Amino acid sequence: MMDIALIAVIVSLVGLAIAALLYKKVTSVEIDDPTVADITQQIQDGAMAFLKAEYRYLAIFVGVVAVLLYFVTETDGHLTALAFLGGALASVLAGFSGMKAATAANGRTAMAAQKEGQAGALAVSYNGGAVMGLSVGGLGLLGISLVAFFFGAGDDGSTNITHAAGFGMGASSIALFARVGGGIYTKAADVGADLVGKVEAGIPEDDPRNPGVIADNVGDNVGDVAGMGADIFESFVGSIIAAMVIADSSTNMNADYVILPIFLGLVGYLASLVGVFSMELLKNSEPGAALRNTTFIGAGLFWVVGWFGIGIMDLDTGTEPMVAVIIGSIVGILIGLVTEYYTGIEDVFGLKPKAIPHIGEMSKTGPATNAIAGLSVGMMSTFIPIILICFGIFGANHFMMDGPGSGSEYMPEFGLYGIAMAAMGMLATVGVTMTVDAYGPVADNAGGIAEMSGLGKDVRDITDGLDSIGNTTAAIGKGFAIGSAALTALALFAAYSAAADLKLSQVALSDPKVVIGLLIGGALPFVVAAMTMTSVGKAANEMVTEIRRQFKEIDGLLEGKEGVKPDSAKCVQISTDAALREMVGPGVVAIIAPVIVGFALGAPALAGLLAGSLVTGVLMALFMANAGGAWDNAKKAIEQGHIEGAEKGDAAHDAAVIGDTIGDPFKDTSGPSLNILIKLMSIVAVVIAPALTVTGWL
Amino acid sequence: MMDIALIAVIVSLVGLAIAALLYKKVTSVEIDDPTVADITQQIQDGAMAFLKAEYRYLAIFVGVVAVLLYFVTETDGHLTALAFLGGALASVLAGFSGMKAATAANGRTAMAAQKEGQAGALAVSYNGGAVMGLSVGGLGLLGISLVAFFFGAGDDGSTNITHAAGFGMGASSIALFARVGGGIYTKAADVGADLVGKVEAGIPEDDPRNPGVIADNVGDNVGDVAGMGADIFESFVGSIIAAMVIADSSTNMNADYVILPIFLGLVGYLASLVGVFSMELLKNSEPGAALRNTTFIGAGLFWVVGWFGIGIMDLDTGTEPMVAVIIGSIVGILIGLVTEYYTGIEDVFGLKPKAIPHIGEMSKTGPATNAIAGLSVGMMSTFIPIILICFGIFGANHFMMDGPGSGSEYMPEFGLYGIAMAAMGMLATVGVTMTVDAYGPVADNAGGIAEMSGLGKDVRDITDGLDSIGNTTAAIGKGFAIGSAALTALALFAAYSAAADLKLSQVALSDPKVVIGLLIGGALPFVVAAMTMTSVGKAANEMVTEIRRQFKEIDGLLEGKEGVKPDSAKCVQISTDAALREMVGPGVVAIIAPVIVGFALGAPALAGLLAGSLVTGVLMALFMANAGGAWDNAKKAIEQGHIEGAEKGDAAHDAAVIGDTIGDPFKDTSGPSLNILIKLMSIVAVVIAPALTVTGWL
Repeated sequence: MMDIALIAVIVSLVGLAIAALLYKKVTSVEIDDPTVADITQQIQDGAMAFLKAEYRYLAIFVGVVAVLLYFVTETDGHLTALAFLGGALASVLAGFSGMKAATAANGRTAMAAQKEGQAGALAVSYNGGAVMGLSVGGLGLLGISLVAFFFGAGDDGSTNITHAAGFGMGASSIALFARVGGGIYTKAADVGADLVGKVEAGIPEDDPRNPGVIADNVGDNVGDVAGMGADIFESFVGSIIAAMVIADSSTNMNADYVILPIFLGLVGYLASLVGVFSMELLKNSEPGAALRNTTFIGAGLFWVVGWFGIGIMDLDTGTEPMVAVIIGSIVGILIGLVTEYYTGIEDVFGLKPKAIPHIGEMSKTGPATNAIAGLSVGMMSTFIPIILICFGIFGANHFMMDGPGSGSEYMPEFGLYGIAMAAMGMLATVGVTMTVDAYGPVADNAGGIAEMSGLGKDVRDITDGLDSIGNTTAAIGKGFAIGSAALTALALFAAYSAAADLKLSQVALSDPKVVIGLLIGGALPFVVAAMTMTSVGKAANEMVTEIRRQFKEIDGLLEGKEGVKPDSAKCVQISTDAALREMVGPGVVAIIAPVIVGFALGAPALAGLLAGSLVTGVLMALFMANAGGAWDNAKKAIEQGHIEGAEKGDAAHDAAVIGDTIGDPFKDTSGPSLNILIKLMSIVAVVIAPALTVTGWL
Repeated sequence: MMDIALIAVIVSLVGLAIAALLYKKVTSVEIDDPTVADITQQIQDGAMAFLKAEYRYLAIFVGVVAVLLYFVTETDGHLTALAFLGGALASVLAGFSGMKAATAANGRTAMAAQKEGQAGALAVSYNGGAVMGLSVGGLGLLGISLVAFFFGAGDDGSTNITHAAGFGMGASSIALFARVGGGIYTKAADVGADLVGKVEAGIPEDDPRNPGVIADNVGDNVGDVAGMGADIFESFVGSIIAAMVIADSSTNMNADYVILPIFLGLVGYLASLVGVFSMELLKNSEPGAALRNTTFIGAGLFWVVGWFGIGIMDLDTGTEPMVAVIIGSIVGILIGLVTEYYTGIEDVFGLKPKAIPHIGEMSKTGPATNAIAGLSVGMMSTFIPIILICFGIFGANHFMMDGPGSGSEYMPEFGLYGIAMAAMGMLATVGVTMTVDAYGPVADNAGGIAEMSGLGKDVRDITDGLDSIGNTTAAIGKGFAIGSAALTALALFAAYSAAADLKLSQVALSDPKVVIGLLIGGALPFVVAAMTMTSVGKAANEMVTEIRRQFKEIDGLLEGKEGVKPDSAKCVQISTDAALREMVGPGVVAIIAPVIVGFALGAPALAGLLAGSLVTGVLMALFMANAGGAWDNAKKAIEQGHIEGAEKGDAAHDAAVIGDTIGDPFKDTSGPSLNILIKLMSIVAVVIAPALTVTGWL
């Protein structure tokens, strides 16, 4: 079965080579407009400066944790530490290459729109996204396969799966810092630039006079591309590792089950490559359909090949794991559609959304009622996705829980393994889904650059069109991100219980220590959400002060005098510093909390902590992401005339703009951070599990 | 041991008689100002009209549920149904008498301030509150004792403790409806009256021209007095029942443990009576000290007599239950102080609060940053109280978990019983703590009536002083309410596990069905919070429309023309209708959800649901109550000049007013509803437990 790991290594290297070729293809588009070239350069410089500074910080952190891991891990600590470094490095590489490609593709998409029209622009932005998609999928598969290959996962009795968990912990640590840092960066710049530029000075969005505009554009790449890439990378790796640990810890599951997740990752990656290439054939069709179809081709191929492949593998549970995979995919798609229903303006399958009109209506009585409406829509929108996740858990567990038995036997680890498979259903084709996710910000930024460079309405129309299509497809991506986070965290929880060798009766809800863990774990997402929101507020405040200062002190800037330029670099610096300074706290909380609770109160209390953070983490992530999305679209709905008796510029619109600003850190900083928080804590728990005792020190 | 129940019956009847005498004493104060008399009459009429309408609704609901209980309960269903009716009736009586006394005391406090000065006003308002306090404590103790006496709780093996749970379910059902209905009523009136009166028309608060002012004052009584009374009544009863069920279900615990909670309730009630009477001696001292001292006298006496009483009872665990009681009291006080730190303006034990200045500062950049700051303060403020609750659980469990054993034996039910005792530590002296809680709104409303009737600055100064003292004391009360809700819910969870006969391994966190329950349970507080917030928004909207109409259509109203009066009754009607219409949804969710999950997915899934709702319910309740309180005080801090560079009437103050309005439903409707939600679901689970199976239908 080691052959599969080897094949996966080769395929992922091929995939990474293709990503490199696509990058070359993107950069081969010439930028012959000097303003576009200049802005592209500034954004690229700002983004790279941030990444370099961030990686310097992270290098210290990663080094310290690696040393600690070496000492904490009971056997072969150096291997766990090595795997941890590998996971961190792979995540950094994925983020870096995606960012490099995205910042290169932004301006070139605008150029392609000018020279070749829509099909050309679509191809450039899609390929820009594909570099990210294929890097994330390829590096994830490569890393896990190498760990499995060298450390001999599941091949004999000597396996030490903790090494694989170490790889996941490296990836998750980087992911949390990237998400939090990127989220603070982008929202500080966004909120700051808007508050002074749009509200106070009354100049349009993306106006080149605004010193915060470059930082805002850098932020889009830092937050939406690099942050999201690290996030998805971590989910992909986490779901594979969870399944491997569960299989490895069970005496009922043979080595096939340890390697199966790698096999599925391999098939998913191959299917993604085909999906990505199909864009070449589809690019002249309607762009929305083209985007969707590349995803469908990837997913369909994955299902079919996976089904037959598992048949050939001749597992003792037959093709049941694939049933769980398919359940997971369907749940992910449905969560995406529900999200769309609560946060979107358009009908979803003929159902008229009620949330956005409600918020729009409540905006008429002012910002307070707008805020109350947005908050309640966000809270209400958690329910159906939670029920869908429950269906996913129920279904995946139901079809696998009898294991290879006759149906009368009950083997809980198979059911839990099924849940990890359902998560894989949302993540195996990450190569193509992430491509579409990363395409969105590229198209969005292309529009911004076109605006700043004055490329004209035709170009802007094309980029706006590409952007709006990206938004709908992104909703499905969000559903996958949230659904897979919940299922992966649950699978990691099962992996932790297995790794800590906890008996069922030791993680009983009626044990006071488990309840204490549950309560503390439940509180942590509130704490991290509070920290990240406060950070955005503080950083935005600094940005406001600086932009106000420039408008006041730089003669002729606000009037648009020829040759007078804002000091954009200063704003970039402010965002960078704030993001780096503020990302430390939440990251430390996420890593320290499970360690303290695990050692002080014992392994069962840590199990409680993981379960508690899973519950409130998923709920708060849904609440914050959806409230933010709904506020954003309620504002757009007023601007587009969807709300009777309200229009751009009136009091209702002002109220909606305030709601949108409240929602900024909700949807782009705090909400997404929580998805990673729960997985990072789970994987830290898996790594330290062997060192824990049942009673703890207290 | 049945003697104790009998003594409790007698003592509670005596206490209720004293409450009646205090009511007579309050009403003996003459109202000789015609305006005060008129307003008092209007408020009393409005409040009674609402209560009557509410009770008509509830009568139908209670009747239907009683019939269902009769059929669902396995043995002696008629007794459970009867106990349920008794619990509902007792709760209604407690709410009704408290409301009657409070509405009578409001205007009379203002009169006493005018005629007798501060001491007289303090006595009237305190006695007004004491009617509520003694009714809640007396009716709770009476009801539980009667149930124990007639159904023979714990006296022999034939006990059916489900009947006692039925009583609790009756109390909890009424409590949820009263809290939700009252909360919607008061906030609809408050938000509506403020938005049109203060913001649009620019007239002061409590101005008699505002048609919404009477409804607002009625709302204060309906929400803060009747709603809170039903809430505390339910907590008190719930904690006693939880302990009784745990003791009754254990083979290691003898009948003493079943009756012990009634004994403690009895001692606490007697101590409360002494505390309440001590006001007679203290009323001429500094009012803040007087209030605190009545509470301390009650609590101290309870500790001392309880300690010796338990010694005389000669339990096989010695006085250990009393240790748990004291831990509970201390935790409750500390939670109150932390709440004060996060939401107050004044130093707490020399610590300078940072939250309010932060929100004040962030108000300067507008409503969006004010809202973000308030939300993050609310989220952050959950952490320390949760840790304190965990300490309470840990301590109470730690001291009792060995039971009467030598210390090496582990008897989990004793630890869980200890947690119920800790809850009792916060609730046994409810007679006096509730008195102080109810005193606050009386003093507050006395101020409003003084304002409306033009009684002059001297009177207003006295009532304002009494009001502000009430606020500080109320913080401790809030700490008790939240802390006891968490511990009671946890104890009820243990009671449910015992009643459903669930083994430890059946409620394991790694069971997918338990996790499904956990997720659904976790989502319910979000759903109920969303429903109640939406309801307030809708009802406030109706109120706004009506007040605008009156200002427009009633000639001379806004100008204050002699003899022109607003149609206050219409506004009272709107609030009443909205409250009644909107309270149904959340109430039904709370009762139906555990029934559906319990029967469909089985008893372990329902255990998961209870644990999930406990975690998010407590967190959301803390988050919403504290965010609301912080927004409120940030506005006051600006008004009182505590925030440099901001003052009443400027943009920062406007932003703070918006934050305060967002916080209104947070702190007075949704937040408090969640405390009851989790307990109601738990007690419904206890009642249906014997009818459930492990696997459920699915």
